[in-house]
Amino acid sequence: MINIALFGAGRIGKMHAGLIAGSADARLRYVYDTHRPSAEAVANQFECGIADTIEVILEDDQVDAVLIATSTDTHVDLIAKSALAGKAIFCEKPIDLNTELVEQCWQKIRHCNVPIQIGFNRRFDPTHSTLKSKLVEGAVGELQQVIITSRDPDIAPSEYLRHSGGIFRDMIIHDFDMLRFITGEEFSEVHAIGSTLISPDLKEFNDVDSAMLMLKTRSGKLCHINASRRCVYGYDQRIEAFGSAGKLNSNNPRPHSVSVSTDSGTDTSSVLNPFFIERYTEAYKEQLAQFVRAVSKGEQPSPSFVDGLMAQKLADAAQQSLQTGLPVKLD
Amino acid sequence: MINIALFGAGRIGKMHAGLIAGSADARLRYVYDTHRPSAEAVANQFECGIADTIEVILEDDQVDAVLIATSTDTHVDLIAKSALAGKAIFCEKPIDLNTELVEQCWQKIRHCNVPIQIGFNRRFDPTHSTLKSKLVEGAVGELQQVIITSRDPDIAPSEYLRHSGGIFRDMIIHDFDMLRFITGEEFSEVHAIGSTLISPDLKEFNDVDSAMLMLKTRSGKLCHINASRRCVYGYDQRIEAFGSAGKLNSNNPRPHSVSVSTDSGTDTSSVLNPFFIERYTEAYKEQLAQFVRAVSKGEQPSPSFVDGLMAQKLADAAQQSLQTGLPVKLD
Amino acid sequence: MINIALFGAGRIGKMHAGLIAGSADARLRYVYDTHRPSAEAVANQFECGIADTIEVILEDDQVDAVLIATSTDTHVDLIAKSALAGKAIFCEKPIDLNTELVEQCWQKIRHCNVPIQIGFNRRFDPTHSTLKSKLVEGAVGELQQVIITSRDPDIAPSEYLRHSGGIFRDMIIHDFDMLRFITGEEFSEVHAIGSTLISPDLKEFNDVDSAMLMLKTRSGKLCHINASRRCVYGYDQRIEAFGSAGKLNSNNPRPHSVSVSTDSGTDTSSVLNPFFIERYTEAYKEQLAQFVRAVSKGEQPSPSFVDGLMAQKLADAAQQSLQTGLPVKLD
Amino acid sequence: MINIALFGAGRIGKMHAGLIAGSADARLRYVYDTHRPSAEAVANQFECGIADTIEVILEDDQVDAVLIATSTDTHVDLIAKSALAGKAIFCEKPIDLNTELVEQCWQKIRHCNVPIQIGFNRRFDPTHSTLKSKLVEGAVGELQQVIITSRDPDIAPSEYLRHSGGIFRDMIIHDFDMLRFITGEEFSEVHAIGSTLISPDLKEFNDVDSAMLMLKTRSGKLCHINASRRCVYGYDQRIEAFGSAGKLNSNNPRPHSVSVSTDSGTDTSSVLNPFFIERYTEAYKEQLAQFVRAVSKGEQPSPSFVDGLMAQKLADAAQQSLQTGLPVKLD
Repeated sequence: MINIALFGAGRIGKMHAGLIAGSADARLRYVYDTHRPSAEAVANQFECGIADTIEVILEDDQVDAVLIATSTDTHVDLIAKSALAGKAIFCEKPIDLNTELVEQCWQKIRHCNVPIQIGFNRRFDPTHSTLKSKLVEGAVGELQQVIITSRDPDIAPSEYLRHSGGIFRDMIIHDFDMLRFITGEEFSEVHAIGSTLISPDLKEFNDVDSAMLMLKTRSGKLCHINASRRCVYGYDQRIEAFGSAGKLNSNNPRPHSVSVSTDSGTDTSSVLNPFFIERYTEAYKEQLAQFVRAVSKGEQPSPSFVDGLMAQKLADAAQQSLQTGLPVKLD
Repeated sequence: MINIALFGAGRIGKMHAGLIAGSADARLRYVYDTHRPSAEAVANQFECGIADTIEVILEDDQVDAVLIATSTDTHVDLIAKSALAGKAIFCEKPIDLNTELVEQCWQKIRHCNVPIQIGFNRRFDPTHSTLKSKLVEGAVGELQQVIITSRDPDIAPSEYLRHSGGIFRDMIIHDFDMLRFITGEEFSEVHAIGSTLISPDLKEFNDVDSAMLMLKTRSGKLCHINASRRCVYGYDQRIEAFGSAGKLNSNNPRPHSVSVSTDSGTDTSSVLNPFFIERYTEAYKEQLAQFVRAVSKGEQPSPSFVDGLMAQKLADAAQQSLQTGLPVKLD
Repeated sequence: MINIALFGAGRIGKMHAGLIAGSADARLRYVYDTHRPSAEAVANQFECGIADTIEVILEDDQVDAVLIATSTDTHVDLIAKSALAGKAIFCEKPIDLNTELVEQCWQKIRHCNVPIQIGFNRRFDPTHSTLKSKLVEGAVGELQQVIITSRDPDIAPSEYLRHSGGIFRDMIIHDFDMLRFITGEEFSEVHAIGSTLISPDLKEFNDVDSAMLMLKTRSGKLCHINASRRCVYGYDQRIEAFGSAGKLNSNNPRPHSVSVSTDSGTDTSSVLNPFFIERYTEAYKEQLAQFVRAVSKGEQPSPSFVDGLMAQKLADAAQQSLQTGLPVKLD
Repeated sequence: MINIALFGAGRIGKMHAGLIAGSADARLRYVYDTHRPSAEAVANQFECGIADTIEVILEDDQVDAVLIATSTDTHVDLIAKSALAGKAIFCEKPIDLNTELVEQCWQKIRHCNVPIQIGFNRRFDPTHSTLKSKLVEGAVGELQQVIITSRDPDIAPSEYLRHSGGIFRDMIIHDFDMLRFITGEEFSEVHAIGSTLISPDLKEFNDVDSAMLMLKTRSGKLCHINASRRCVYGYDQRIEAFGSAGKLNSNNPRPHSVSVSTDSGTDTSSVLNPFFIERYTEAYKEQLAQFVRAVSKGEQPSPSFVDGLMAQKLADAAQQSLQTGLPVKLD
């Protein structure tokens, strides 16, 4: 049983609080939020203490780990302080929109040797992780090509997107991590193209709402990502992995398995899940379980801080490629 | 290359004429129809002779085989005459609505030893026949249960149905043959229930438009047929075979493989095929090929006259069961 | 928030204990089991009291409801006592293997007017209940035929089955309830056939391992159930509902959505769920939620005691039909 | 009824001969092949004349149209001669591996005004063309992104591929045409990456066996092609079209619709079609029908000579992009 303190009591923080409360191996000790009513709401619902300051948490020896679900711009600071205080850390992605700050953070904390896990929850999705294990077992031979389809149900307001870091750092960063997870490789080249087919005002700040990418791994595997900020039929999240001996598909699970056949067409099934909270429920649960297991055993969890950093670098390269119109080589 | 004469130039006869014309191993020599313009239409389109009488055909030594696609009540007479004339015979199902006449016919012709094939075309459907071969290969172990779904796109006018022999002899007879084909067994018991949920006036002549049946094979395998005279989503023809080591499904093929996903639901594919001509195109072609092969080699084709008779007996039993409300034992 | 006491700390009792513990609206107050260590295990894991006697529970005013998950032969007694003590009751199915005892129980308790729900959990499965709501909405017009496929992953030892009441009362009773739920009707006729294709020694006590049934509703709808005690590809639980304007399918959900394509075949997805605990997780959760809601509001929950009784009568009729070889009429 | 002369009696020529023979609206008049026995084989099977020289055909007034299925390097010469002789022309793709020769040919013949159709048969596939019509009907709103999956069953010998013009001109040219057909637009940018993951010796002549492309249409639509010279699970040919109001998929049809469920996995269906002759049977038939219709009516068929030229230019751009590692802008 480990004790966890939660930084950030917003939507995603609250979800994590619920998962900790439901876990047999972890206990929610504190919640901290600069917006006091949010902290209170979580404390009441899940019966934990409210920390008035960060220090209350960091100085409490009973706290084994912190879960950082605050706004992105506070992550590196909280990570650094928590690491120096010897706490195990789970931090939501992205670590920071500015890769330089991420690298500085890494220099500060790498010698602390505390367990750090970054919130790339999709690695823990039963369907995606089954694809990965089948790949490792050799079910389709040597991997040759990967296609990721990543389409959000709807676009956020432009004012929000203006500060999001752009489609690559905000949204597709999950897919960069997934490509690294699936291929088990680093990339030599990234090329991104994009258009504003949904929300033309994104052009103002060099962002796009529709994007395609090609990436080549160091050994020559070919990868593709297609992404959109709006997908009217639901949250579309698929992986297709082509190997020398076959193909693996991680298809979209559906809320239910009813189909309808009528004279105006046949086999209308349910729509896809609305968004990530519903789609990745099991993934969030398993992600926490793995973090708790690693912390309990004193092991380094995965995906690591460096995994977070590497995904960020791919996002930066994609952004640069979009702006220059040219592929970006990586070393 | 064998020469075939066609009896009957109606809808189904015309289809057979086209198949013979398209075959590399058979030639359409004559067409005969009491309705002269129909015979002429076929003769013109497929470039064959018109026989003014049945005898012209039966006395022509160049004619190797006859294909009987006339109205049901003429079948036994044409079969008997053709068999006595030494012609190979392909006859559309059913042989006759009256099983006694079928048995009398059999007594008359069984010693002629001519090749006779009955038009249970579904045995030759690529999907149904693949199911059968997988079963024979042991893909799902010992067969235990079979479910046949048999639903016509729409009901014929009551006046037509009044003379059809009833749903079991007119429509479900195909499924009785399919059950015999799939199980490779005879049946010890048939129970049929039915309702007039579509066309209440069928009650007048003891017919139903919706039927369910249970049949038990001599070795104890359990079989079910569900049938309807109207199926708004298309022509629904499926087989499910449960074995000791798994399950086989013969699913409906579709005219095309496009799917559509929108916000009002996902995965609307095409409707099913409209009816048997479209659904069983390949089956009709392969059925003829098999008949031509058997005749060319002087072998007995399959399904045989006796197969036709046995399916008829099951239809009779089902009709009796429907009327008595009790299962009918077969010997 | 209601307080629940649990009778029975076996496998299914333990599952219910976990669901109560995870519910925001119910609290597990006591557990009772004649096998003390089982009660202790549940008490420790879910932090509740152990009741030494049934009376401790029935006399405690703080206890709003009891959940009966003991062996079947104790159900009617516990129901009667709990009802007389004014407790709301949730009881696992079947109420009793002997329908006469169920009716006597009903006579004893019907005037107590306490909320009683019987554990036909499948009504709450997201996929089955979506089928039901679409039916009610008229998505496929007037219902005409229903087919239920109900196949357990593996057969229990014959010694267990000897006392199970037979395949209809033990296993297919769920499907009888489902037919009543889907059609919203009572039945005029039941016919069951069966074979021992898996475990021949069941014959000794007039039981079968493979069964098929046909049922007719009072208005003439036709229903079919096919069932097997062993299904090697997993727990197969499907419903197909044919209406005047289309067809609804409640298909099997799968543990994950990965498919594999190789040269020895294409589209191998995952196997089905192993058994009911995994398949009906959501259904069990929703079933409890509905019971708690009804009790909180002082309403009668559903499925009711009478629903339990009616399913039992269908099971009795099926057993009688199997033994006589004849359809059984119901009034 | 139009009369067609066939140039080229190889595998694909023979297939066309069969299609002409089976057509009600066209007659095969001559076959010509420099390899006399091939011409004879076709002439015998389909009962047509053998032309000793090209001129015999071009000077015969009875010949309405020519079908060119000779080796690629003879296409432009035959096209020019036939056009000048006033014959309608159907020519297999590609027109020539050298785009300059294609353009010269075009200059020579454009004023002849004879009907010319290029053999991009996939436009006529029932599934692909249904996708196109649904798109045109607005089933998924404004088109935004297109993904084409194009994977051949197996790689040809390197010695053959050395003279094939490379993967883009030989194989992916079909997909370039399909993108133009689906989007109804020209492209502003092509970027191709590739690897030799199957046959490393292709590197010798700057070819690859695995390729990915990104293309942008002039209006900003984003397109992707993934291709492989070897696909062990069959001939994989899919299109996915994302629009503002949904998504259309042109999925692979299968030779049959049987599925198998066993304990080692569930739902193994058939493998895909072996290769284009089987996969695109209907497309080849419909392609010819459309050519015959256009010629009969004196209309220009589609896809046109210019469509052939435009696909070629995209292939050239892709090859250049592969070699430079940079996107190629098109005007």
